[in-house]
Amino acid sequence: MNIILSRDSQVRVMEDTVTNAEKSFGQFCSLLAAYTRKTARLRDKADQLVKQLIDFANTENPEMRATLRNFAEDLAKVQDYRQAEVERLETKVVNPLKLYGVQIKQTRAEIKKFKSVRNNEIKQLEKLEKLRQKSPSDRQTIGQAETSVQRASVDASRTSHQLEETVDTFQKQKLKDIQKIFSDFVTIEMVFHAKAVEVYSSAFQTLESYDLEKDLEDFRAKMHGVYGRYDARPPLMDTTLSPALPWSLAQSAQSTIRSQRKEAVSEDDSAEEDPVEDLRGQAQRLHQ
Amino acid sequence: MNIILSRDSQVRVMEDTVTNAEKSFGQFCSLLAAYTRKTARLRDKADQLVKQLIDFANTENPEMRATLRNFAEDLAKVQDYRQAEVERLETKVVNPLKLYGVQIKQTRAEIKKFKSVRNNEIKQLEKLEKLRQKSPSDRQTIGQAETSVQRASVDASRTSHQLEETVDTFQKQKLKDIQKIFSDFVTIEMVFHAKAVEVYSSAFQTLESYDLEKDLEDFRAKMHGVYGRYDARPPLMDTTLSPALPWSLAQSAQSTIRSQRKEAVSEDDSAEEDPVEDLRGQAQRLHQ
Repeated sequence: MNIILSRDSQVRVMEDTVTNAEKSFGQFCSLLAAYTRKTARLRDKADQLVKQLIDFANTENPEMRATLRNFAEDLAKVQDYRQAEVERLETKVVNPLKLYGVQIKQTRAEIKKFKSVRNNEIKQLEKLEKLRQKSPSDRQTIGQAETSVQRASVDASRTSHQLEETVDTFQKQKLKDIQKIFSDFVTIEMVFHAKAVEVYSSAFQTLESYDLEKDLEDFRAKMHGVYGRYDARPPLMDTTLSPALPWSLAQSAQSTIRSQRKEAVSEDDSAEEDPVEDLRGQAQRLHQ
Repeated sequence: MNIILSRDSQVRVMEDTVTNAEKSFGQFCSLLAAYTRKTARLRDKADQLVKQLIDFANTENPEMRATLRNFAEDLAKVQDYRQAEVERLETKVVNPLKLYGVQIKQTRAEIKKFKSVRNNEIKQLEKLEKLRQKSPSDRQTIGQAETSVQRASVDASRTSHQLEETVDTFQKQKLKDIQKIFSDFVTIEMVFHAKAVEVYSSAFQTLESYDLEKDLEDFRAKMHGVYGRYDARPPLMDTTLSPALPWSLAQSAQSTIRSQRKEAVSEDDSAEEDPVEDLRGQAQRLHQ
């Protein structure tokens, strides 16, 4: 029975190869599909952020409005690249993994065919063995049984070689596919990240060139337009006031306050220690 | 009543500034917190993929095993950078937005204080107006009321200036914070994407240098180790076979099959049209 045992172990190795591939590719497929979905969710959140940035920009003064709109535009651009990433992952990574099921089905059918041919060979061998024991002198019947065994063996041999080729092709295709699918995955990710670095560099410039002072002047002008009617009021030095009379001495007090504020601005503008500075320098070096 | 109307509009502009900031910063905070969470989910999925890659690598032959392990290591490295991205987004983007509530509370308290001082001034003015109509000749009482109005007006004027300064400081801080928070966001993202490009470039090299042929030789050797016992079998030319005898002529047939396979391999290896090739070239150019 040594032959049957070795046949079994041959089939077992082949079945293991296919089963392991089926399991692993199935898991890779669902993991990478989930990875793609999570990427799509991240894109959705960033899209909402873009929308919120534009809404907020519209309530701000021109300088901040322009800055935030440009930033939102860049952020939207990154999401366009993320969308392309999602589509490419689906086409180049998830779909090929899904299609793997077909290939595995074919290989399984080959293995099944081989098993049935092998079983026929075993049956013929057993029949011949039986005849030899029961009627060792019946040369004609034994001769016929030997021919049947020979035919079954030729069949088994041919099928075995076919199976060997099928499994070899399967393995080769599997290895090539793994290399191709993960290379595509890496390429898709690499392209996306490279594009993101490019766009964020531009977004960084946009935010860096924002002119806070110009914006504050706009805000103060707007505020004083409102204050003007109310605050143009003297510190009430005389007691014979009439409430209908405009309080006309406040202008000087106001300009004092304004120059004080300017001092405060330049104090606050002095650079503070910033641990993110390190990262920025790093990113700029990487991008050069 | 013009003065009261302009006071109301002053307060309304201030309240609008604060309310709009509160609403917008709240929305930015929850959107960016969600963005950070989605990024963390993406990291989790990729971590699972790393684990699955290592498990699968352990079932493969040495060449593919080494390739997949190196690739898994690079993929894990990207997740480490993603983890750093998540932590930095929390510290530099989400937390500062959360802390904004405190600042807004202070500004609201200032506005409330101003409203109460303003109401006192209105009360004193109304009292004086009433006195003038009821007893226009009672100079002493009118004089006292005028002093009260004067005091209330000095109070209102001082508080109004304080409020103006508070709102100005608030606005300046708000604009600075927007610039800082989004610059930090962009910097954090930029650093992550730049690191990802770097690591994926290395992963791409790993996958490109995978030697399929070497791996297939290993696989075939393993397969033939199993086939050896079974397939070493002749096409059964003589009929006096004994099933116990080894079928010893199969070797030549096998080597034919093997050389056929080799031809198939070199045929399959010829480069096919690949749309991802474009992306690869693009990514490599970007990374140079």
